[in-house]
Amino acid sequence: MTVIPAHWYNIRADIPLDVPDDRPSPFASGTLRPQLPAKLIRQEMSRAREVPIPAEVLERYAAWRPTPLHRARALERDLDTAARIYFKYEGGNISGSHKLNTAIAQAHYYAAAGATRLATGTGAGQWGTAMVAAGAMFGLETVVYMTGHSYRTKPYRRTLMEMLGGRVVPVEGNLAAALAAALHACEDPGTRFCTGSGESYSLLHQTVIGQEAVAQLELLGEWPDVVVASLGAGSNFGGTAFPFVGAARRGEAPAVRAVAVEPSACPKLTRGQYRYDFTDSSRETPMQKMYTLGHAFATPEIHAGGLRYHGTSKLVSALYADGAIEGAAYGQPEVFAAAVRFAQLEGIVPAPESAHAVHGAVVEALRSRAEKQPRVILFCLSGHGQLDLAAYAEYAGGRLVDVVPDDAEIERSLAQIPQDTAAARR
Amino acid sequence: MTVIPAHWYNIRADIPLDVPDDRPSPFASGTLRPQLPAKLIRQEMSRAREVPIPAEVLERYAAWRPTPLHRARALERDLDTAARIYFKYEGGNISGSHKLNTAIAQAHYYAAAGATRLATGTGAGQWGTAMVAAGAMFGLETVVYMTGHSYRTKPYRRTLMEMLGGRVVPVEGNLAAALAAALHACEDPGTRFCTGSGESYSLLHQTVIGQEAVAQLELLGEWPDVVVASLGAGSNFGGTAFPFVGAARRGEAPAVRAVAVEPSACPKLTRGQYRYDFTDSSRETPMQKMYTLGHAFATPEIHAGGLRYHGTSKLVSALYADGAIEGAAYGQPEVFAAAVRFAQLEGIVPAPESAHAVHGAVVEALRSRAEKQPRVILFCLSGHGQLDLAAYAEYAGGRLVDVVPDDAEIERSLAQIPQDTAAARR
Repeated sequence: MTVIPAHWYNIRADIPLDVPDDRPSPFASGTLRPQLPAKLIRQEMSRAREVPIPAEVLERYAAWRPTPLHRARALERDLDTAARIYFKYEGGNISGSHKLNTAIAQAHYYAAAGATRLATGTGAGQWGTAMVAAGAMFGLETVVYMTGHSYRTKPYRRTLMEMLGGRVVPVEGNLAAALAAALHACEDPGTRFCTGSGESYSLLHQTVIGQEAVAQLELLGEWPDVVVASLGAGSNFGGTAFPFVGAARRGEAPAVRAVAVEPSACPKLTRGQYRYDFTDSSRETPMQKMYTLGHAFATPEIHAGGLRYHGTSKLVSALYADGAIEGAAYGQPEVFAAAVRFAQLEGIVPAPESAHAVHGAVVEALRSRAEKQPRVILFCLSGHGQLDLAAYAEYAGGRLVDVVPDDAEIERSLAQIPQDTAAARR
Repeated sequence: MTVIPAHWYNIRADIPLDVPDDRPSPFASGTLRPQLPAKLIRQEMSRAREVPIPAEVLERYAAWRPTPLHRARALERDLDTAARIYFKYEGGNISGSHKLNTAIAQAHYYAAAGATRLATGTGAGQWGTAMVAAGAMFGLETVVYMTGHSYRTKPYRRTLMEMLGGRVVPVEGNLAAALAAALHACEDPGTRFCTGSGESYSLLHQTVIGQEAVAQLELLGEWPDVVVASLGAGSNFGGTAFPFVGAARRGEAPAVRAVAVEPSACPKLTRGQYRYDFTDSSRETPMQKMYTLGHAFATPEIHAGGLRYHGTSKLVSALYADGAIEGAAYGQPEVFAAAVRFAQLEGIVPAPESAHAVHGAVVEALRSRAEKQPRVILFCLSGHGQLDLAAYAEYAGGRLVDVVPDDAEIERSLAQIPQDTAAARR
């Protein structure tokens, strides 16, 4: 029987990565200071392979973890492929996605550090829901700054967050703008800023997904040829793929490909640059070296709100630069087509974000068929789409189009990033 | 480890019930003939204690059964009660509710009997979703006649049904009207009518819930003092409670109270009459003896669409008349208050129908506290409310009121039922 791992897994112990230090912003006013609990700072920098999960967090995980690993047999049959497709389902909790894994850990650390209120930004609302739910578990009030597009098109996300005791504030603009608004809220002394996805400690917390999947596949005598996960700021991809990539790198398991799937509307990995940029549009917080389209990138309003972030995490970026992982970008219509097929065959409606991984797995399965190789594919179904049915209705009505930025647009956005040298000079 | 039961459980083997035969309608035109597969007819009449579950059905059940049994510890603490509250969660499948248990069985039998298309009626959309999903599994097209109120207030239910390959047609009026519309669709020869909840075979199929719960509680060394489930046409209540009531009646287990919770807006059990009535508003199909408010009862448009049915099943009715089970009726505001409390504490948003059982369990837990008796309470959380957040938003906005019919209204509705003698004369 699979059990919940007792520790989080740190890939930096197994792959000597060049993860350059953050640099102070040339625009820092000194008023915006995310006050990270010391334990999270230590996790952010840690080189230890195993970071113990606190008992208070494990107790909360036990409400829905270990999460199920399913084999998508009906999808395999429908694709007429010899590939064996497994998926790890992270949607079976109140937040409806994997986000709760790190939200609970963060709420625990912030509460222990004396915070009484948390402020955060959310794109699709999955992270906001998770943070509100986790905050409530540890007696914290959570204020969620939600991108205006999601606020309008996903009213039930707001209802759910409010039902769980949270406060929701709409912010016009992209996720970077919502994050900046949340940062400003922390000028109030009792309020701390927290963020879901791109920080190294978030990726660390999410490794419960991949570690469980390793154990579950081992029970079946399987090892994946390829691991697929969708890529926003990076925690879902990192949490799923890193334990596999690390085991292979340690020589304890066969090699494994890891494919990060991003929307073609927001292709930071496949069309961005690896350079220092801001993580939010305040331009006041430290710059991180990452694959980015520029913090001012006007991400098209696709339905996968959670993947609209302009950059991706330092760790995922370093691994991509290192050649250790792959990237792929797909458009909304093909992604929704795969999601509907999956829902019909496997009985779970994927979140639009997770649908990118579904399509990525379908592409791998069709490649397996074409190459007559019976590959083993694992993907992470990171969340359910019960609150995203408006997007599915648009797809069914033929109103979903793909919105791919042209090169000039990306160039213009990248040109707004201060030069590395300028940033370094301070 | 709990396994899926190999058979359905028939309470008629353990309790010698007077379940009077159906009577032909005095208004039957002869054109409306639900063509029930022979196996379902046999199940409807069966007195055998165990009815084997076909392998094709068991295989489908395995996708999400056995369903989890949780202990609601946070709710217990919040209620400051010594009662131990367990709940069986049936929302973890594509239909989001227990309805899929009988939908799969029915789709199997109809497909085996040569049907190519199914027509059915749905109130809240849970049954429609289940029937569309089950139909697709066995190659059947499903047309769902949905009450107009649900069609308008739950657009995403429709999106989901259409995504799964179903066709959805709105019908003004209550569930009886939707059922009548579905019956009329069966004038087309390839189309068969099917119905979700009130037939004895539906209750039979749902006993997988109660049987699993018996086994799961036994593993914990527990036996409930009281089993609580919401009551619409009866399948959720019957499926949950009957295996417990039967075991107690056989003398194999201690006595158990079984409480059917209905909305005060549609109180068939607690304020209706036990008499012959129509099961739909066509007035053409056979009359059944049941607790009813009258087939013409104008059920207020409460959010628990699945509980708006004017009557309840023959089996539940006979047991209630026999004194073997209890009834309770609660209003929308108190029911939603309990549901929000449950969502905050236990991390699952209940469907408005299931919220009635949540409130029923809360009432029992508070009674346990008042009487200083550490009772064991089991309730069925029959479905999730992710597609019902509009109702929760109304509740949060203070716009949910209770709508309780007055005696004169019920009298008027009951007066529209043809006299038993008239029906018997044909």
